Amino acid sequence: MHRSRVYALLIDAPEAEAAQAAEFWSAALGVGTRAVPAEPQFVGLDEALPGLVTAVQAVDDAPRFHLDIETDDVPAETGRLMALGATEVSRWLECRILRAPGGHLLCVLPVASPPEVFAAEARTWS
Amino acid sequence: MHRSRVYALLIDAPEAEAAQAAEFWSAALGVGTRAVPAEPQFVGLDEALPGLVTAVQAVDDAPRFHLDIETDDVPAETGRLMALGATEVSRWLECRILRAPGGHLLCVLPVASPPEVFAAEARTWS
Repeated sequence: MHRSRVYALLIDAPEAEAAQAAEFWSAALGVGTRAVPAEPQFVGLDEALPGLVTAVQAVDDAPRFHLDIETDDVPAETGRLMALGATEVSRWLECRILRAPGGHLLCVLPVASPPEVFAAEARTWS
Repeated sequence: MHRSRVYALLIDAPEAEAAQAAEFWSAALGVGTRAVPAEPQFVGLDEALPGLVTAVQAVDDAPRFHLDIETDDVPAETGRLMALGATEVSRWLECRILRAPGGHLLCVLPVASPPEVFAAEARTWS
């Protein structure tokens, strides 16, 4: 038995346009930005979407969005999603990057939100 | 003065894979699906994300996500977003489809959520 929930929506922008993208989304949604000193590829968009972390990420790829799914058991959650048809694309630190049927990316990562948020909102899978 | 809010996250999947994508996301997020009889290209994902309508849309294009922004004044909201750097890609019924700096799509559409939700949650732009 393990648990998971959607943690974040990432707006992945080509590196050369990422700063401009962050500035646009901040103004478009009327929210502040938050730099993450240890992870300079991310610019957080404070409370842009209800209950979801939202951030612009600079990527070496075409523009895309992806969803982050946080879980208390990364291998089990990855296995569950792959049994549903997702395929593993790569790994990055403790995260597994999957491609869903239809072609969209999602990342499975260890619990990142406050424990009480995860406890209250995660789904349980058996 | 006009108002707007993020209304929906659309998972746009190539037409041939859209049914499989809807089945995956429904199971992955543990939510039911809802067909929209008048708009067969959409499959709603019930309460997949807090406070946001979420749906898979069959598109004649590569896999992508887009955000829908609902507003009480489509021309004013479109003008606001274009002044921030978005460009108009096309129009569909009453919706304006824009490309944000960084390359992501967003649609501006007339208010689609219940009036009390829009009244409580929309931002006001002057």
